[in-house]
Amino acid sequence: MIYLDNAASSWPKPPQVVKSMEEVLLNYAANPGRSGHQLAAKAAEKIFETRARIAKLFHVKNPNDIVFTQNATESTNLALKGFLKPGDHVLTTSLEHNSIRRPLEFLKAKGVEVTYLNIHTGKDLHADLLEQSFRENTKLVAVTHASNVTGTILPIEMIGEITSRHGIRLLVDASQTAGFCSIDVDSMKIDLLAFTGHKSLYGPQGTGGLYVHPELDLVPLLHGGTGGYSELIDQPPIRPERFESGTRNTVGIAGLGAGVNFIEQTGLQQIQQHEQQLANYLVDELAAIPSIAVYGWEKNEFQCPIVSFAVEGFDANEIGFILDAHYQIAVRAGLHCSPLAHDSLGTSEQGGLVRVSFGYFNSEEDVKELVHALKDIIN
Amino acid sequence: MIYLDNAASSWPKPPQVVKSMEEVLLNYAANPGRSGHQLAAKAAEKIFETRARIAKLFHVKNPNDIVFTQNATESTNLALKGFLKPGDHVLTTSLEHNSIRRPLEFLKAKGVEVTYLNIHTGKDLHADLLEQSFRENTKLVAVTHASNVTGTILPIEMIGEITSRHGIRLLVDASQTAGFCSIDVDSMKIDLLAFTGHKSLYGPQGTGGLYVHPELDLVPLLHGGTGGYSELIDQPPIRPERFESGTRNTVGIAGLGAGVNFIEQTGLQQIQQHEQQLANYLVDELAAIPSIAVYGWEKNEFQCPIVSFAVEGFDANEIGFILDAHYQIAVRAGLHCSPLAHDSLGTSEQGGLVRVSFGYFNSEEDVKELVHALKDIIN
Repeated sequence: MIYLDNAASSWPKPPQVVKSMEEVLLNYAANPGRSGHQLAAKAAEKIFETRARIAKLFHVKNPNDIVFTQNATESTNLALKGFLKPGDHVLTTSLEHNSIRRPLEFLKAKGVEVTYLNIHTGKDLHADLLEQSFRENTKLVAVTHASNVTGTILPIEMIGEITSRHGIRLLVDASQTAGFCSIDVDSMKIDLLAFTGHKSLYGPQGTGGLYVHPELDLVPLLHGGTGGYSELIDQPPIRPERFESGTRNTVGIAGLGAGVNFIEQTGLQQIQQHEQQLANYLVDELAAIPSIAVYGWEKNEFQCPIVSFAVEGFDANEIGFILDAHYQIAVRAGLHCSPLAHDSLGTSEQGGLVRVSFGYFNSEEDVKELVHALKDIIN
Repeated sequence: MIYLDNAASSWPKPPQVVKSMEEVLLNYAANPGRSGHQLAAKAAEKIFETRARIAKLFHVKNPNDIVFTQNATESTNLALKGFLKPGDHVLTTSLEHNSIRRPLEFLKAKGVEVTYLNIHTGKDLHADLLEQSFRENTKLVAVTHASNVTGTILPIEMIGEITSRHGIRLLVDASQTAGFCSIDVDSMKIDLLAFTGHKSLYGPQGTGGLYVHPELDLVPLLHGGTGGYSELIDQPPIRPERFESGTRNTVGIAGLGAGVNFIEQTGLQQIQQHEQQLANYLVDELAAIPSIAVYGWEKNEFQCPIVSFAVEGFDANEIGFILDAHYQIAVRAGLHCSPLAHDSLGTSEQGGLVRVSFGYFNSEEDVKELVHALKDIIN
């Protein structure tokens, strides 16, 4: 099987991820932070270790400003529903995943005003467009760091510079970029950073998190047991307990820590270089096939290793199906949970696009096999 | 290490749980239900397999009425926040965990009326008390199936018979009972059943779920990507997608399925018998120690295998600490995220209680060692 669906879930995982999860499961899968005994303390330590690693990766000073969630969707829900109030205005883009769009549509029905900026690539989101769209009641800009459909990266530094100048908060959905792009919440002036564990951070599914700026308070999404502070009627004000009700996924978080450790050891730059090289190589090869049109790819731009394309005369899902069934190649065809992006690309009618997304464990050989298969199908 | 903290998290896990998680992680940790390829299909199949097993365990006809969450706390939050509206009245008890109490206190501030029935054991909750407490606007009874402090079991059949007769919905928190007590949502007339994976279902942390009666609609707690139905602006009406936004924890859910399979193979009755025997044995032994007082235990009653006690002259946490540090025995001391229960037992002032909770892998030898250690400490 050639796995080219890393933007959905990275696979395979680095061996140390599997090892670390096994270690916890076999030796101390007790309840972290609940009981005082050694096994519980070891579980809590493991979680803190991952929290500290993630904090370091995003240049967050206090690891307790990282909240662990089950996935990026829980993170964006906590951020959006926890921050926005009726009467607030929020700016977002047409490139958003349903994990930003659907919570916003839900909040719209509760009196939050939402503006979608119609953009095709990161470059379309220029300073003027942003500033012109601000209203008096604009409280938040909520944007993806990179499109999960085309890989185009949004200019977060520029956005952060403007939002912070206007006293507007900035939520960034780093689902596609955490572990691929370098992220510095301070210099990028990010107030809320949502990330998932199972994509480019190489952790398992069931993990993710939200960085919450220390000065920001959110209404918790979950209310419940926090281990400590049991006597309080309300959620404790202390982080991370305030936002982490219920038992955390110790085994998964241990795996996530090992994934981040793999990134530290390999080096972000090395990962970027390898994956971008594969994406560029694929784009070049596809350019030579007349009936294939790549969408949203910008030559010589820094992009996430995602290449989406249409094949003339084929529905996207048909291509996905044939690649899987006849060539053992796994890609993702369809709307990618981002119907707005497909609307704006004009690809909703043709069943979306075929998306190829690379991970560190892919090779040039994989690209060759894919191109060979595509040529085969077209002929 | 003698592990007697199974009510916090069961440990060790059955070998097949570890094996099943490894299998998924190594072979098909792709994104379930997102992409169409074989690995994604296998991941989705694994999740469905667990869904079906859980449905069977709780006598749920349609597996899609089981929603997977990250823990029981998310389940109670989804149930309570998704069902109750300002002006509604809800009945609950003083035995509740913070996972019921804190969401209710949060909703109270939003105009939901909450009555706590002050009870010490399941027997205190008799039909008259319940019916006398109903108001015209009572919409829900939200109760734990068993106290996580004393193990006392609430008479759910009786409650369900009454609530269904009055057209009131019933939410049961089965955190301590799923996998230990036999649960039949139909005959017990349960509308919402919250469960966790990492306790007596023998799965890993990061798993849990909520059964939602087919006729009941809830406001989702999470809005976001659902794999299918991407084109809809709102959450799809279809289950389980409606309530399962964001990527599920495939590896964890596979482990949970193996845990339930372990229960099927071992037999609920066999598990109950073994664990109750240990609890009874411990209670008998503790009765012979004058300075130890067991709380909430009822001789010859069917209870969860939880024994909580105080030692005269010692703070509960002190005992927990000494057992851990000097005798390698893991118990849980303190308030157990259930401060109301401790208030009603009168044990909040003394630092709560020392809680011993058994799992299927405990033995009589464990009880002997514990009793020996306690006698040692007291002398």
